Amino acid sequence: MAEAKAPVLIVGGGTIGCGWAAAFAAAGHPTQVFDPAPETAARVELVWRKALPVLERLGNVGADVAPPSHIARLDEAAETVAFVQEALPERLELKRQVLAALERHVPADAVIASSTSGLSPSDIQDALAHPERLVVGHPCNPPYLMPVVEICAGAKTDAPAMDRADAFYSAIGKTVLRLRREMPGHLVNRLQAALWREAVHLAAEGVASVDDIEKAVTKGLAARWCVTGPTAIFHLAGGEAGLAKFFDDLGPEVEKWWASLGTPRLDAETRAALIEGVAQSPGLADAEALAGLRDARVPEILNLLSGTEDRNGSLH
Amino acid sequence: MAEAKAPVLIVGGGTIGCGWAAAFAAAGHPTQVFDPAPETAARVELVWRKALPVLERLGNVGADVAPPSHIARLDEAAETVAFVQEALPERLELKRQVLAALERHVPADAVIASSTSGLSPSDIQDALAHPERLVVGHPCNPPYLMPVVEICAGAKTDAPAMDRADAFYSAIGKTVLRLRREMPGHLVNRLQAALWREAVHLAAEGVASVDDIEKAVTKGLAARWCVTGPTAIFHLAGGEAGLAKFFDDLGPEVEKWWASLGTPRLDAETRAALIEGVAQSPGLADAEALAGLRDARVPEILNLLSGTEDRNGSLH
Repeated sequence: MAEAKAPVLIVGGGTIGCGWAAAFAAAGHPTQVFDPAPETAARVELVWRKALPVLERLGNVGADVAPPSHIARLDEAAETVAFVQEALPERLELKRQVLAALERHVPADAVIASSTSGLSPSDIQDALAHPERLVVGHPCNPPYLMPVVEICAGAKTDAPAMDRADAFYSAIGKTVLRLRREMPGHLVNRLQAALWREAVHLAAEGVASVDDIEKAVTKGLAARWCVTGPTAIFHLAGGEAGLAKFFDDLGPEVEKWWASLGTPRLDAETRAALIEGVAQSPGLADAEALAGLRDARVPEILNLLSGTEDRNGSLH
Repeated sequence: MAEAKAPVLIVGGGTIGCGWAAAFAAAGHPTQVFDPAPETAARVELVWRKALPVLERLGNVGADVAPPSHIARLDEAAETVAFVQEALPERLELKRQVLAALERHVPADAVIASSTSGLSPSDIQDALAHPERLVVGHPCNPPYLMPVVEICAGAKTDAPAMDRADAFYSAIGKTVLRLRREMPGHLVNRLQAALWREAVHLAAEGVASVDDIEKAVTKGLAARWCVTGPTAIFHLAGGEAGLAKFFDDLGPEVEKWWASLGTPRLDAETRAALIEGVAQSPGLADAEALAGLRDARVPEILNLLSGTEDRNGSLH
């Protein structure tokens, strides 16, 4: 018989919250989604049905699984909730108010993880009676598909809360990245923003079609980055002496490139150019088909990279 | 019987030149590598032996294949060379001199493609008697593995030369991206430089370990980027109204993120932090093992994305 998993409470029933709910429920956690809006129930079920085949492809479905459920009031939360995943809109006061109210309904030692990408965990936790158990646990979108979760402590977070969040996410098949200090956007969104800024610059300057700029990533950079990260690539380029030789040979050159990167604005003209470029890109205009392709292909790539056996083994 | 393929001449027998030679030879082109250095012969053979299994995995090996050969003098070039791939060091005067000398030994209508990433095709072609046939044909590294080739015209390049280069690369299984105007670094290297600048910033500021920053790409961004490029991701995030809605909701937020990105220098302290970070990263320190993993996994990912049958079909 499978070991009983601790109850999880998701706070906020938007796309991210429902995606989190699917990931936790599939791993065997009894999972509730708190949101006062009654239409949340339908969204929880819709995302669950979309996510389950993806989670199955990833080998992230446990042995004893029930769908997530919706609750409209905090006093309906399970008494033994061990982990709270907050996924409210990105408004500091809203998060502070809802989490402070929530605290009266969950055990004092439950970890509270915020999905925030841009707010400070120190600011959020200040509203709590037990601020030491608040961490950032930021997913990539969609949370049921993408393996990375970034965790970060606020000024008052204690080390056990970070360790418990790490262990909790790892146990549902996530790859946990630990920030050593607060930084708006954490790692993933900042790196993504940096690349996208240059993509927008190249499109705005008419250097290539949006379609070709997209392909520079999808056909050019992405497959290699699945194996060798941005620094590893230059470490390999340096041959036996690695990065040290790369810096000696090409350090000044790299700094020249950096200085030449664009700093576009998202003004009306640039927005129009991008929208028009997407409309003209075969395979981009149909967003639903593209999302379907993503949900089909990305699990295959992740399995290929990690070995399906390992992933199944971690949950069954 | 397979149709006879046109002879190809590679100019410059370094790593990139030998990588190109393997890609062309595997597709069935009689391929010579010109380089005055006698040790080139051994490198041509070494890269060929390393590349052939990778090309086989990609389905990019034709029916009638001979290894590339080395020539130390230009007058040994095949009389019917139809395509020249220049892969000399990135020094303008060197490229101009060697290509001008070469022109006397190849047919006047052979396309000459330069592998340059940072030099201007207009500057290179000015040295030629037939400047209209010079294009940039920039590969990703290694050229036998990575599908993308960026092509770009100089001021004097004619349209047929661009079309012939496009058709030539496409026929050996490459994905051709067309630049509409000259831009140092083209698309791929500029996008890569933009992301790496932020990765260096995050490492230099101590926001996370180099290992975790690498994983933000290898486990976080790369698999999704294999299917949905940097603009497509935000197009999907906008739901049914796509990018237009994304800009309305989050345009100002994105501009704030952009403004907060780092502008590091590769000074001694930053170099040391990166070198130390790589040394402490499991899986990064052993460069040879990592390159082997790249050559094994990246073809599998590319096949998964493109459908192996299609790729085989294009060459056999």
